Amino acid sequence: MPETTRSPLAPTSVPAMPHVAGVAIATHGANLRYRGRDDMTLAVLAPGTTVAGAFTRNRMPGAPVDWCRRQIGRGKARALLVNAGNANVFTGRDGAATVRAAARGVAGLVGCPESQVYLASTGVIGERLPAEAVVKALPRLQKGLTADNWQKAANAIRTTDTFAKLSGRVARIADAEVGIAGIAKGSGMIAPDMATMLCFVFTDARLSAAVLQPLLRRAVAETFNAITVDSDTSTSDTVLLFATGAGSRHPRIASLGDRRLREFKLKLTEVLRELAHLVVRDGEGARKFIEIRVSGAASTRAAHRIGMTIANSPLVKTAIAGEDANWGRIVMAVGKAGERADRDRLAIRIGGIEVAERGHVHPGYREAELQPHMRGQEILIEVDVGVGRGKATVWTCDLTHGYIDINADYRS
Amino acid sequence: MPETTRSPLAPTSVPAMPHVAGVAIATHGANLRYRGRDDMTLAVLAPGTTVAGAFTRNRMPGAPVDWCRRQIGRGKARALLVNAGNANVFTGRDGAATVRAAARGVAGLVGCPESQVYLASTGVIGERLPAEAVVKALPRLQKGLTADNWQKAANAIRTTDTFAKLSGRVARIADAEVGIAGIAKGSGMIAPDMATMLCFVFTDARLSAAVLQPLLRRAVAETFNAITVDSDTSTSDTVLLFATGAGSRHPRIASLGDRRLREFKLKLTEVLRELAHLVVRDGEGARKFIEIRVSGAASTRAAHRIGMTIANSPLVKTAIAGEDANWGRIVMAVGKAGERADRDRLAIRIGGIEVAERGHVHPGYREAELQPHMRGQEILIEVDVGVGRGKATVWTCDLTHGYIDINADYRS
Repeated sequence: MPETTRSPLAPTSVPAMPHVAGVAIATHGANLRYRGRDDMTLAVLAPGTTVAGAFTRNRMPGAPVDWCRRQIGRGKARALLVNAGNANVFTGRDGAATVRAAARGVAGLVGCPESQVYLASTGVIGERLPAEAVVKALPRLQKGLTADNWQKAANAIRTTDTFAKLSGRVARIADAEVGIAGIAKGSGMIAPDMATMLCFVFTDARLSAAVLQPLLRRAVAETFNAITVDSDTSTSDTVLLFATGAGSRHPRIASLGDRRLREFKLKLTEVLRELAHLVVRDGEGARKFIEIRVSGAASTRAAHRIGMTIANSPLVKTAIAGEDANWGRIVMAVGKAGERADRDRLAIRIGGIEVAERGHVHPGYREAELQPHMRGQEILIEVDVGVGRGKATVWTCDLTHGYIDINADYRS
Repeated sequence: MPETTRSPLAPTSVPAMPHVAGVAIATHGANLRYRGRDDMTLAVLAPGTTVAGAFTRNRMPGAPVDWCRRQIGRGKARALLVNAGNANVFTGRDGAATVRAAARGVAGLVGCPESQVYLASTGVIGERLPAEAVVKALPRLQKGLTADNWQKAANAIRTTDTFAKLSGRVARIADAEVGIAGIAKGSGMIAPDMATMLCFVFTDARLSAAVLQPLLRRAVAETFNAITVDSDTSTSDTVLLFATGAGSRHPRIASLGDRRLREFKLKLTEVLRELAHLVVRDGEGARKFIEIRVSGAASTRAAHRIGMTIANSPLVKTAIAGEDANWGRIVMAVGKAGERADRDRLAIRIGGIEVAERGHVHPGYREAELQPHMRGQEILIEVDVGVGRGKATVWTCDLTHGYIDINADYRS
């Protein structure tokens, strides 16, 4: 593994994290792959905790994803166990047995049904994850359970991440304050080897699973589903949102449309967006953070697809790495997306400067004008495809020598 | 532009090219972008020549693609004019005017309708291609027309290509011999800037456009449409097949199913496959040529899509660049394709060695055994996804520092 230096796009300060009642977290170094650092995380949740989840669309999901998917419909959770270093993916019956043993162990510890134990693993694909090692760590984890232990948890779930990813907010529901605390790992959206994307969000709001699930789905659509580092989709991507309801003083919210949920929705989306951006900022080899805003598309879905096609284009990403405002490659990527777009009305702005309009270069465009923007760490691309009112924003990073270094030498 | 050294995967010999009656070719240095080399190519075709074409699916096609698409249905051709260095893409009305002027000029020279003049341009996007410069070169080109001038033409259509790409065959139709001569350029399938994919094939077989068009479509499907360098689709991709019928002594072939066409089909596909492979071998930064065979898919189409998803995965390509048999990334890519695949029956072989089967690593697999294969220049990946009888083979190259070098510094 090449040495990982902290991403130049890493945040310069640690975020203030809120208190979330009804959550206790412990971490432990079980030497599953890494030495001298914590690689297991246990969160124990108050009785009555509800849960919602979003999982990878990859058709080769890992055993923990299979497990979570099977339970998520019941909407109840009492614990979360995460390990880093081994993804428990493509491990056949062995992998499923390890998952069952882990769930049984945690359930015994917490005193809950196995179906209320959630599991996530991240790391190498295809290697056996020994059940014994996982189960053996449980008593140590139980002893270490501590409230608001966010920083340690964010560190213990890392694999190739060069920094810990945390985001927190306080929101009001009716007149009561609730905390929202999220942690994530990922150095790609993506990456099948040791850079799976995981995200866990905890709140002490009291919300039924029926409200929680669509709330999460919507927030994920415009945050985690709108980022990409290298277009490869992990077999383990997992986002879980737990609502403990512990000590909550707000009235019961029965429907997603309830106005009293408005601020909570906003803050939850902020937490997820912040974490999604941190994943991009820690993208393998990333040196530039790129925001792509698409407008004028036939639909939101079409705008999103055009945005992701630009974001995934190796030629667009290498041009930006080279600080080259090569807008011809953006034209190419729009055309390649397969969505409706009017070549003769296409307009492109980079860093707010008009580059192309009506199917040709803007008459006033001078490449030198764009140089200061291209040399910066934050790149903004705006594209109007001229056929409708669909809009979407997506985020990605550039494609650099660092990406090749990390991924061509990864296991050696 | 970085210096381009000849690809390590370039062929070591120049292929023997056949005589094709009814074709004369000239090249000329018009300094459209490059200095000290030929950048324009004119082919004049015998009266009665038929033509078939396949064009980019990119929705931002260049003006020459628009022009060719408009004429191809008539199936008649008397000339082909190609320039390298400027793609005449995203150039608005100006670009269309240049195309018309070029067609008019060539038509006057040859004495044919403008609609029988085919045009292709490759190079930078968004820059005006001056009609004057193109038209001015025509008399010089006319003077230089020579039979079987393949090598010069293959050189004059190059942009970032590090070697000229030619392939030829002689085929029998009934008892008569016909020549098939093909040239191509491309250093990617792909690449919007100066590495567009162009391919021109000439034969003196006598075949109606109605037979020629489906013949080409089928051959392209399993050759040029089965390669990828970086997943980016050019705005100018063009494959044209011209059949002069000049001096032909074979009987008229009225239907595609005629058994007498069997050898010709075979040889035509060989020429296209050889040229397609040469494009991959000249892929930007390529150091390994990768063949991916998918079997057991729900359909041919599904197998093709799974193959292309593996071939386009940056993580698979960087692993191969690093000579790492990281088969977990192949599992990821299969799952990401979105086609039916049975995780618990998936089998993978690399270099003929069984790596994974039935959803887990093969018990006899030792990574060291694979090292000699991974260190070689030709990598073979076989994947059986265990759900049906669909098969497909695709080709790609690895993703290296060279790709970043070429594309991050391209215009500077």
